[in-house]
Amino acid sequence: MDFPFTRIKGGVGAPLGFLTSAVSCGIKNPAADRLDLALIFSEHACSSAGAFTTNRVKAAPVRVSQAHLRKGDLRAIIANSGNANACTGVHGIHDANAMCDAVAKPLGLRRSEVGVSSTGVIGLPMPMLRVTPQYDALIAGLGPKNGSDVAAAIITSDTHPKEIAISFDLGEHRVRIGGCVKGAGMISPNMATMLCFITTDANIPSASLRKGVLECVEESFNRITIDGDMSTNDTVIVLANGASGMPPIRRNGKRCHQMRQALRWIMLELAKAVVRDGERVTKFVTVQVHGARIYLDAKKVAEAVCKSALVKASWNGGDPNWGRILHAVGYSGTRIREELVDIFIGGKAACLGGLQADTPMEELRTIAAQPEFEIVINLNQGEADYTMYSSDLSPEYIDFNRSEYAYWKQSRKDGRV
Amino acid sequence: MDFPFTRIKGGVGAPLGFLTSAVSCGIKNPAADRLDLALIFSEHACSSAGAFTTNRVKAAPVRVSQAHLRKGDLRAIIANSGNANACTGVHGIHDANAMCDAVAKPLGLRRSEVGVSSTGVIGLPMPMLRVTPQYDALIAGLGPKNGSDVAAAIITSDTHPKEIAISFDLGEHRVRIGGCVKGAGMISPNMATMLCFITTDANIPSASLRKGVLECVEESFNRITIDGDMSTNDTVIVLANGASGMPPIRRNGKRCHQMRQALRWIMLELAKAVVRDGERVTKFVTVQVHGARIYLDAKKVAEAVCKSALVKASWNGGDPNWGRILHAVGYSGTRIREELVDIFIGGKAACLGGLQADTPMEELRTIAAQPEFEIVINLNQGEADYTMYSSDLSPEYIDFNRSEYAYWKQSRKDGRV
Repeated sequence: MDFPFTRIKGGVGAPLGFLTSAVSCGIKNPAADRLDLALIFSEHACSSAGAFTTNRVKAAPVRVSQAHLRKGDLRAIIANSGNANACTGVHGIHDANAMCDAVAKPLGLRRSEVGVSSTGVIGLPMPMLRVTPQYDALIAGLGPKNGSDVAAAIITSDTHPKEIAISFDLGEHRVRIGGCVKGAGMISPNMATMLCFITTDANIPSASLRKGVLECVEESFNRITIDGDMSTNDTVIVLANGASGMPPIRRNGKRCHQMRQALRWIMLELAKAVVRDGERVTKFVTVQVHGARIYLDAKKVAEAVCKSALVKASWNGGDPNWGRILHAVGYSGTRIREELVDIFIGGKAACLGGLQADTPMEELRTIAAQPEFEIVINLNQGEADYTMYSSDLSPEYIDFNRSEYAYWKQSRKDGRV
Repeated sequence: MDFPFTRIKGGVGAPLGFLTSAVSCGIKNPAADRLDLALIFSEHACSSAGAFTTNRVKAAPVRVSQAHLRKGDLRAIIANSGNANACTGVHGIHDANAMCDAVAKPLGLRRSEVGVSSTGVIGLPMPMLRVTPQYDALIAGLGPKNGSDVAAAIITSDTHPKEIAISFDLGEHRVRIGGCVKGAGMISPNMATMLCFITTDANIPSASLRKGVLECVEESFNRITIDGDMSTNDTVIVLANGASGMPPIRRNGKRCHQMRQALRWIMLELAKAVVRDGERVTKFVTVQVHGARIYLDAKKVAEAVCKSALVKASWNGGDPNWGRILHAVGYSGTRIREELVDIFIGGKAACLGGLQADTPMEELRTIAAQPEFEIVINLNQGEADYTMYSSDLSPEYIDFNRSEYAYWKQSRKDGRV
């Protein structure tokens, strides 16, 4: 960002006028007392906008939240982890609506002012018998906390909660943005098994917010990939309640531009945090494609490289294998010319004009052995570029994802399904 | 096939008039005495046709063989394993040409009557100092063997050589088809790090053969995937020398139809063998998509399912996870309707109308625990269908592909690069 800002404590509860709460229903693990139902509530009317999975198989809460967001006046979000409420048909829609109703009434809202999100296992019905008794505690718990309870309640196989908040001056007013995210598996361009909630006390008109959210998501969450799988539940929802007391941000003005920069920065930080905390991830790799004829070519090349199982396996081994990168560039579906392609690993030339460069292999090896490094691919055909954030693919990832059957069996034993 | 045929011994050497030879140059492993240079030679003039990788990064031997195949009169193929001669620039082309020249002269052929194939590591120059001294032994070794030496010489990380041969009556004449294949990694639709050579003593005019090969490859090798990576070296070459004494097969006649059936059957058997012997593969899964609006939709759905890391990980665990299959169907890029999708695992309904079916999970689990099973996905939107052959993705696959650096280091120590 090209203006000063301060990191502040917390996440979605950090901006003024937002209350949060979280309780444990025993959806995630009936034995351990882990938070798995969360609520965000704005004391003031909000502008709201969202972005959702483009998967044709959409979870019930995604369908419900999309409908509720049409007016752009969401004021509360209820979210659970442990069950995705996906592939659950009409019953799933009914359950998602019931979750909205449950918080709308006591908070004095219409059902359509409440968003709902779920993340977890696909294909099992929501364990409403466990959720329903906790509504009272959830609402009673609402308070001006910093939102860390929400960040903790939405994670599944993440190793830790991920949240961020900043404050900065917009004209004469100090405003705050806070956000939290959960990720871990099924992370692919066009979002992921990913829930992300962002709140701000800036005053942004609905139409501006909608446009800004779509642009920022395109440049952050749509640029990450862990395993190349796109989930049924991906959701980003942004609430802006204007509690900072500032006048509405004018469209295309300087403050609008600043606000968008801040929003993009927050989203990119959260997106990167998702990759770093991917399931059994050991490497964070930034892939920059330069010199493509058109933007779409650059994107295709970046995606092919970031999704290749062979490339990701070599990253896992800390192997600076430019041959595999080049072969993925080759099958990306763009008309690249092999003899023009340069590949740099951590700033050192690995491949020039499609051939091995002079950099000693040991030097590249040292770079690829780091937990984070950058790969630059120059197609030398034009001016377009694209950046993606990716991870390795580890034997442990496969091992971790081998069987949900055990989980299902335990669930049935616990009476959760 | 709807006509009788007999399995016969051997592979590319089984048809009449084909001589084979293989020697060890120490490209694959200088210590062990493994065959890594092979030669196939027809005593008679041939019709020939081929299909090659669509990767824009093409290995030198692919470029050379494509040029030589233009006339459709290839009579010999020289192939090595251990080094792919890919990403090797002008030097690579020079080396590939030198390999053709080396066998063309003593066999009395033009250079353009010789095909060349390489498979192995990408980006290292061909160790010609090791190959050149072996040409004499290679040619001296030519004899009417059954071709098993060729099958053994082209494998890399395959666990065993893969070959097949059949004989059948075409009109009054008995003809034979033989083939061998190597696969293992980088196996994806549109072929793979895959070399496949097929010979026949049937008499097929060049134009017919070319059309037949493209059709049969589309229905066999283009329908398999192991890791979703498409290689730089994929090659299928078919030689037909007419040594059975039969008259030329007339285009679109009954014998033409029979011949194409036989060719397709051979290719499909070899393609399946490649999947079964994929790197660290434990499952062979047939995915049939039915009821798509158009052929392309069915194909997209099959590919999305067969390439999903999450789906493949669940297969590895023997987990009948229909939710992950459905989510991959959803992001395939086709306009499927979730509420219409049925999924059957081993003939048992796992998901009906997008919802969990009644089949007890234990029953599905028993099927998915088998080494081979079939998944049928019915989109219920139309009449088009598509079948793919896929494998699981194992922790061992990633582990195996983590580092070629060690290989490179050893190669340098051995003086191979």
